[in-house]
Amino acid sequence: MQSTITPWEVKGDIDYDKLLREFGISPLKDLPKVFTDDLLFRRKIVFAHRDIQKILDAKKNSKPFVMMTGLMPTGKFHIGHMLIARQMIFYQQLGAKLYIAVADIEAFLARNQPLEQSYQNAVEDYITNYIALGLKPDNCEIYFQSKRSSDAKKANAYYRLQNILAKHATFNEFKAVYGDISPAKMVASLLQAADMLHPQLAECEGPIPVVVPVGIDQDPHIRLARDISQRIKLPMPPFIQLSSTYNAFMPGLSGGKMSSSDPNSFIALTDTKADVEKKIRKYAFSGGQPTLEEHRRKGGDPDIDVCFQYLKFFFEPDDKKLEKLSKDYKSGKLLTGELKEYTIKKITEFLEEHQKRREKAGSFISKYIR
Amino acid sequence: MQSTITPWEVKGDIDYDKLLREFGISPLKDLPKVFTDDLLFRRKIVFAHRDIQKILDAKKNSKPFVMMTGLMPTGKFHIGHMLIARQMIFYQQLGAKLYIAVADIEAFLARNQPLEQSYQNAVEDYITNYIALGLKPDNCEIYFQSKRSSDAKKANAYYRLQNILAKHATFNEFKAVYGDISPAKMVASLLQAADMLHPQLAECEGPIPVVVPVGIDQDPHIRLARDISQRIKLPMPPFIQLSSTYNAFMPGLSGGKMSSSDPNSFIALTDTKADVEKKIRKYAFSGGQPTLEEHRRKGGDPDIDVCFQYLKFFFEPDDKKLEKLSKDYKSGKLLTGELKEYTIKKITEFLEEHQKRREKAGSFISKYIR
Repeated sequence: MQSTITPWEVKGDIDYDKLLREFGISPLKDLPKVFTDDLLFRRKIVFAHRDIQKILDAKKNSKPFVMMTGLMPTGKFHIGHMLIARQMIFYQQLGAKLYIAVADIEAFLARNQPLEQSYQNAVEDYITNYIALGLKPDNCEIYFQSKRSSDAKKANAYYRLQNILAKHATFNEFKAVYGDISPAKMVASLLQAADMLHPQLAECEGPIPVVVPVGIDQDPHIRLARDISQRIKLPMPPFIQLSSTYNAFMPGLSGGKMSSSDPNSFIALTDTKADVEKKIRKYAFSGGQPTLEEHRRKGGDPDIDVCFQYLKFFFEPDDKKLEKLSKDYKSGKLLTGELKEYTIKKITEFLEEHQKRREKAGSFISKYIR
Repeated sequence: MQSTITPWEVKGDIDYDKLLREFGISPLKDLPKVFTDDLLFRRKIVFAHRDIQKILDAKKNSKPFVMMTGLMPTGKFHIGHMLIARQMIFYQQLGAKLYIAVADIEAFLARNQPLEQSYQNAVEDYITNYIALGLKPDNCEIYFQSKRSSDAKKANAYYRLQNILAKHATFNEFKAVYGDISPAKMVASLLQAADMLHPQLAECEGPIPVVVPVGIDQDPHIRLARDISQRIKLPMPPFIQLSSTYNAFMPGLSGGKMSSSDPNSFIALTDTKADVEKKIRKYAFSGGQPTLEEHRRKGGDPDIDVCFQYLKFFFEPDDKKLEKLSKDYKSGKLLTGELKEYTIKKITEFLEEHQKRREKAGSFISKYIR
């Protein structure tokens, strides 16, 4: 099947090697221990980059750097969203300053969601979950695209940059990157480029290395921001070229894309134990064989098994245990039903603790939204 | 000759009646005395409108209203710019709150002028001249597109509106209005629409009648802002439809367009007496006859005579004197050279007084830029 990857759709099977070649990005390798201590890097869930050396150098030399990311406050916060959330927390612990954009203008322009609803979703679901996952308020600036800052200088500078960027992009460039384009999408793209670049403005940090961790499908946004940024001569000092990292797609329950609009494709962080049991038992795509006899004989395929992937992405932090699960599954010793029940146990244990932390998180929101 | 009127060019002869028919705007008539007391309205230099009744009603009922306009801070401030400046002061005296946008983003996007240079031109030339012409600091908000406000709420709201407007316009609409279109022009247009509409946001005045006085060539901007504004359902209360007035073009010295890029096409408000004498004697297009004998016999045509037009627009406020000049010129009694010398006298008298006021104006700038 032909695969299609744009920021607007992911279709078909994903050939990661081909993506790397086509997009001109590099595999992540020879990372220092502070990175590989984190399972996302160690297990190559975050697997590729552009210009990561700038960030490694900053860390090595104890120089400041920024991690910039965004959230689209549509739909429920689910385990797929934890990929970026975990990276936020990783970089924060590494010493980065975080810039986190709530893409409420993009949600309005591209998905017709009113700003009020985006505000509510972002605060009550996304940011509350970030806090429960371990995000700290220090060195962390969460803002809404529709109201950048209560600091007027910063607000003016951010939107000024969006306007200035328009001079450095052509319609053909937007079309080449995004396919179909409308004034709304174009303006949203310019604002997203401003999101990535504005931490380097004088009103923010000044020129500084910035890493933007994304799914590989978001690379067109990165390319556009990188390209435009290097054309700007005036009225600011040159931008340091953006760094980016790329994470694999976390599969949806049935093995396709995890979609906020299909509750049976994901596990939400507000799901109950009963939800998890039902979803995993009923919907989780299995890499096992059709019959018990066949499974015992041929074994299962963990690479396409959704439960195994979920354990690998998040829920089995112990490498040895994960390795044993993989081995036993491949040999046919571990059955699909057993793997599903183990996954249910790990996810519900996680959710039980998480939901307790989530209860307390709400009262800290005001430390994050300033 | 075919005439072409877009915001980017004015070519050929202007058939005002045709413009009115094509653009669907109405002649200004039956104005109250407070308007016709001003020569720009009395002499039909401001000659047409859309929805002016909203402004007349506000004035009649002592309700608040806004006059919004902008300045493009490229080139020298010349007598052509006085047309809008005079209207600013007229509306301010009438009781309007003024919103005056320095279009520095547009100057950058459309004309490649750095923001710093726009700031300098705006402050040292345009705004200084406004003050010398009589603009008062009260009830007057002058702002730069690149830094809307030192009030963060207002700044965020203004740029939020620009972004939201993108959802309510199509590429075809921009093309229909502007002809050729680029991301830069499109973004500048959206910002200009935000300029016209944002006085009605909750963070500014709330819904309020707003009049935008423009040259007829600027009507495409007005149409776009009016059209888009009526499609916005969320996230703000409906906008009151914009009112607009249209003024005639003030001819350049040689009879064509007055162009900031051609110093011999205009008289700057910083010109010396010698400059004025030279420019009027050498360049001012005359409606007189080629020879003295022929002029005495056939008479001149004040309607195409640049000096007569300048007197009519600004420099001869006495209607009876203007009428006599017209009559004497048509009859051949008044010669071209005599009309030119009279115009030089009136302009230099004006400039002498103006330049004295201009000297003092600089020290008041900080009251206008807040």
